Amino acid sequence: MTLRVTFLGTAGAVPTPERSSSAIHVNREGDQFLFDAGEGTQRQMMRFATGFAVSDIFVTHLHGDHVYGLPGMVETWGFAGREDPLTIHVPPGTRRALLALLTAIGGDPSYPLSVQEVEPGRAALEREDFQVRAFRTDHRTRSVGYALVEADRRGRFDREQAEALGVPVGPAFSRLHAGEDVELDDGTVVESTEVVGPPRPGRTMVYTGDTRPCESVVEAARGADLLVHDGTFAAEHAARAVETAHSTAREAAAVAAEAGVRHLVLTHLSSRYAGDAGQLAAEARATFDGEVTVAHDGLVVDVPFST
Amino acid sequence: MTLRVTFLGTAGAVPTPERSSSAIHVNREGDQFLFDAGEGTQRQMMRFATGFAVSDIFVTHLHGDHVYGLPGMVETWGFAGREDPLTIHVPPGTRRALLALLTAIGGDPSYPLSVQEVEPGRAALEREDFQVRAFRTDHRTRSVGYALVEADRRGRFDREQAEALGVPVGPAFSRLHAGEDVELDDGTVVESTEVVGPPRPGRTMVYTGDTRPCESVVEAARGADLLVHDGTFAAEHAARAVETAHSTAREAAAVAAEAGVRHLVLTHLSSRYAGDAGQLAAEARATFDGEVTVAHDGLVVDVPFST
Repeated sequence: MTLRVTFLGTAGAVPTPERSSSAIHVNREGDQFLFDAGEGTQRQMMRFATGFAVSDIFVTHLHGDHVYGLPGMVETWGFAGREDPLTIHVPPGTRRALLALLTAIGGDPSYPLSVQEVEPGRAALEREDFQVRAFRTDHRTRSVGYALVEADRRGRFDREQAEALGVPVGPAFSRLHAGEDVELDDGTVVESTEVVGPPRPGRTMVYTGDTRPCESVVEAARGADLLVHDGTFAAEHAARAVETAHSTAREAAAVAAEAGVRHLVLTHLSSRYAGDAGQLAAEARATFDGEVTVAHDGLVVDVPFST
Repeated sequence: MTLRVTFLGTAGAVPTPERSSSAIHVNREGDQFLFDAGEGTQRQMMRFATGFAVSDIFVTHLHGDHVYGLPGMVETWGFAGREDPLTIHVPPGTRRALLALLTAIGGDPSYPLSVQEVEPGRAALEREDFQVRAFRTDHRTRSVGYALVEADRRGRFDREQAEALGVPVGPAFSRLHAGEDVELDDGTVVESTEVVGPPRPGRTMVYTGDTRPCESVVEAARGADLLVHDGTFAAEHAARAVETAHSTAREAAAVAAEAGVRHLVLTHLSSRYAGDAGQLAAEARATFDGEVTVAHDGLVVDVPFST
């Protein structure tokens, strides 16, 4: 069950030759989403071969480096004859501004396009076995982060135990695993709970967008498998992080530690660190015991199940 | 005297991994301009190290693939603390739409930014020794092309003749070359025209943007040193060129031949030719005897004087 995160753009406010503006592609078992779409996102999708069948785009805030890739992408899908609907999710109070951007000189595509404001704390998207929820962030503008949260999976099926109980190999196994009780030929009833363990947690992937470290991020990221956090600056520029409402790598690591996440990926790097981001990784690792990665354009993270 | 043209983006309506959206950087002896600025232009400028000190951007028309790089660039200059004014020149009747694009979610930079509509047949920009003129094109929208036209240069100074006439080596040479007559110590007057040849033409660089072949382009390109022409399609897609108001390579070559230009560069290539544009070059060369180049991202053309 794929949950693949491809970093399309990992630059801070200003792109560099190495780093394109903010954008993340997520493929969950064929469902494709974008989280932010800065200038150049469509070419990065081509370059890293993520596929283009995106149904939903989740925007964290309306700063240019997170949305200036949208008008061109909306247009390209039109040229490509797209028919599937596209939904762009935006923070509360920003729908009109995003529509202004999309429609200034175009933005009336042949396919259904809707722009919807999310509500922090609620699901922006619900599917059968996962949802994408918005949560509050602190970037001194109308901003949110997003958490992709999978539903619990079935417990493990204890095949040996089932056989020991006399369940015949075949469809009865599937029915038991799916939660049904099964009556054997001799009249014995085997209950699902006898052969199926407790539900196992699904995966959670959290993306903050630009933000100061804050409690709502800790809450959203509690126990997450992957936390993609603003890591714009090294500690020496902590004051600048406060001033611009971003986070240092160390601050992001403290959030990751407090939330008990498994893997922290730092992104939205200031152009200072275009060449070498080792300092950021080192500072984060000094504060957080879990896995730390500093994102680069083209980085692919496959999120595994924890159990 | 540099006249350097750097092709930043050479794609048709849809970019490809190889080709970014339309944009051309021109450096004339330190004066820097952009002609169109599709999505991704600022990163292409970094990638090809053109420099960022652009004073004027000349927009041929308001289709996304020619202007969606503007909002991000305007913003980046702001982040960089730009103070120099920026003028964006746009076709008649399109100022309001471009401002809508720039100001949808930003576009109020700290430096002076003005958007000015050009008038076909008139100079959009005048400098001491060159101007940039707009001319009509045919793209079924409000569109123009641009010609950068240098003033005539001084004629050649005939040093041997000057010495034979008894002019002393030194400042008198410069005065004669600049058009002054000079009186020698013996009272003889040497006229400038005796030692300076006729004025020599400056260079002309013409950029059509997207267009059908048309008479106004031929007029603007008459005798040009460089014609950068829409060459979206090969001849086999001539019908599609008519339908979308573009040109085939052969049609562009016919314009170049009729206008008697020295060097034709084809750009705005359909994504069909991303991998191999040899067909376009061959078709153009069959129709036009001058130099033919099919542009690629990063192509640099230094325009030489013809005499």
